[in-house]
Amino acid sequence: MRQKNKKIWIKHSNKPNYFFAAIFALTEKFIMHSFEELTNQFTAFFNVRHFPEIPSSLYDPCEYFLQLGGKRIRPVMCLMGNELFGEISPDAFEAATAIELFHNFTLIHDDIMDKAPLRRGMQTVHTKFDENTALLSGDVMVIQAYEYINKIRTNHIHKILSLYNKTARQVCEGQQLDMDFEKKQTVALDEYINMIGLKTSVLMGASLQMGAILGGAGESNAKHLYEFGLNLGIAFQVQDDYLDAFGDPEKFGKQVGGDIVANKKTFLMIRALEVSTDEQKEELQNLMAVNPDDKVKKVVAIYKSCSVAEWAKSLKEKYITEAMQHLEDIAVLSVRKKPLQQLASFLVQRQY
Amino acid sequence: MRQKNKKIWIKHSNKPNYFFAAIFALTEKFIMHSFEELTNQFTAFFNVRHFPEIPSSLYDPCEYFLQLGGKRIRPVMCLMGNELFGEISPDAFEAATAIELFHNFTLIHDDIMDKAPLRRGMQTVHTKFDENTALLSGDVMVIQAYEYINKIRTNHIHKILSLYNKTARQVCEGQQLDMDFEKKQTVALDEYINMIGLKTSVLMGASLQMGAILGGAGESNAKHLYEFGLNLGIAFQVQDDYLDAFGDPEKFGKQVGGDIVANKKTFLMIRALEVSTDEQKEELQNLMAVNPDDKVKKVVAIYKSCSVAEWAKSLKEKYITEAMQHLEDIAVLSVRKKPLQQLASFLVQRQY
Repeated sequence: MRQKNKKIWIKHSNKPNYFFAAIFALTEKFIMHSFEELTNQFTAFFNVRHFPEIPSSLYDPCEYFLQLGGKRIRPVMCLMGNELFGEISPDAFEAATAIELFHNFTLIHDDIMDKAPLRRGMQTVHTKFDENTALLSGDVMVIQAYEYINKIRTNHIHKILSLYNKTARQVCEGQQLDMDFEKKQTVALDEYINMIGLKTSVLMGASLQMGAILGGAGESNAKHLYEFGLNLGIAFQVQDDYLDAFGDPEKFGKQVGGDIVANKKTFLMIRALEVSTDEQKEELQNLMAVNPDDKVKKVVAIYKSCSVAEWAKSLKEKYITEAMQHLEDIAVLSVRKKPLQQLASFLVQRQY
Repeated sequence: MRQKNKKIWIKHSNKPNYFFAAIFALTEKFIMHSFEELTNQFTAFFNVRHFPEIPSSLYDPCEYFLQLGGKRIRPVMCLMGNELFGEISPDAFEAATAIELFHNFTLIHDDIMDKAPLRRGMQTVHTKFDENTALLSGDVMVIQAYEYINKIRTNHIHKILSLYNKTARQVCEGQQLDMDFEKKQTVALDEYINMIGLKTSVLMGASLQMGAILGGAGESNAKHLYEFGLNLGIAFQVQDDYLDAFGDPEKFGKQVGGDIVANKKTFLMIRALEVSTDEQKEELQNLMAVNPDDKVKKVVAIYKSCSVAEWAKSLKEKYITEAMQHLEDIAVLSVRKKPLQQLASFLVQRQY
């Protein structure tokens, strides 16, 4: 529809025609794509073979992992960041593909490091094949991601590569800090937020910003969009940690209390260890050391008595407010921001 | 010196001055850099910190591994490929750095896969730190390599990225095939050559070609240089396999027969299994299964009785001849090719 409108506009005048431009601006409201529509568009683009056939021992594991699916949030954020400033460019689809391949590469390697047997209810690569194969499949996937970056045809290639590399490096830093934290008795809240920022949020911010850059956004707009993604990413993780302890098992789709069983430092655990009584602290440390059958129930009880859920909700609100302020500060028609507002609501209110 | 000559030449005339150009061409002979000189230049450029300080748990292992050194053959090949077509450009140093970081990334991950405790006589990353750290340090190193590619300022960026990505993918394929071969009873010579081509040679060919592209070489010249590197790489590996069994322990610097102890399929073993008597074949299979103390001595005795060393020498010659033909076919003054001829001699005649 949009393409058609544009053509009519251009057809009627070679110079800007403010009447048609105004009509066009009004129709924008109806032609911005929703998160769901963009997910469908991206999925159609992405669901092709990304690797050669031979050697199958290297490439089949890559294709296996990609067809496990996923929410494709990050690549869609790239498309949304792009559409915020105009019609979605083919370059944005290439960048989005690179982002999704990069994300899957990190998952394959993280699963090795975490010794995780399952991902999305299916066998992880190192479980289905073996560790060496998973290591090498991840390697070739991160390389293939750059081949999609290389398909970007605008003169923004250096800017995109620079942002992409910086972000990729930060994601590795986040994963390393996460592993370092496993060996630590206590982790301060700001240390945890820093780690989550690196491991989760920067890629969300960068996905949006890459879309913006490819859409020709100015420095200031691109920066605000990045900050929107960064803050949204933290709120997203608060919700993730919250759902692990307080989610509805029916909707959540995975075992409630998984983080508690695995002694993971989460927003909730860090808060509980900060504000609980000495007696409760001792009980928490003991539960983590002994791992009794009723551990989840007991930890959640302490969370409840410390009002951890309410605290998490207000923390989440704080980051959403911050995110929304940055979205507000982007100088485009506010109707264009609707899909991003919807995305934000989905990410931080989701029950699964 | 060269810079100075050039300046004088430019000073005397704004148009091409054929007399000075001829003088300049003659002096080229003396100002092309030798492999050794370029190694020194590259080492000076490369021996800086390549990673941030924090988190040290991620980046210290990277820096540790890089300071273990190495012959830096591939990056120097990039500089040589560049100088073949003119003065070495700053871009060639950036590409060379990317190549060396990529090579080191593959070594860190290969060492994990091979469970190798030592590299260059020092602890491998996964031994000194742990496997997860080695995995992640390798990941961040391959990403950092792309940051150097991103420093290339000419308009060749897409061409370079494309060649670099293809080569990186092929190196992963080679490593996968190498692992696949470990599980196979027999490997045919052409399968082995294909694997070595991917695992070792393509990066040598591509290093030279990247230098050539950045030096403004035409398609045909760049292709011939790539093929020169590819064939040289195979010859290099034949020599490597040869030295393992027949090298002088004093010069070789590592334990002779290491490949034999580890039951590695090498040029020599594949040949021996092809041409030995049924009795010898059975003995070889038995030695590989039982691993007796005198295994190296006995395997080398069979190699000798099958004239495997002579065969390896003629195979090496075949690839060198092929390489030299491609070097011959490059349309530049033959004096400019001297350093590459020296490099070839060094790589395939080296005793260490």
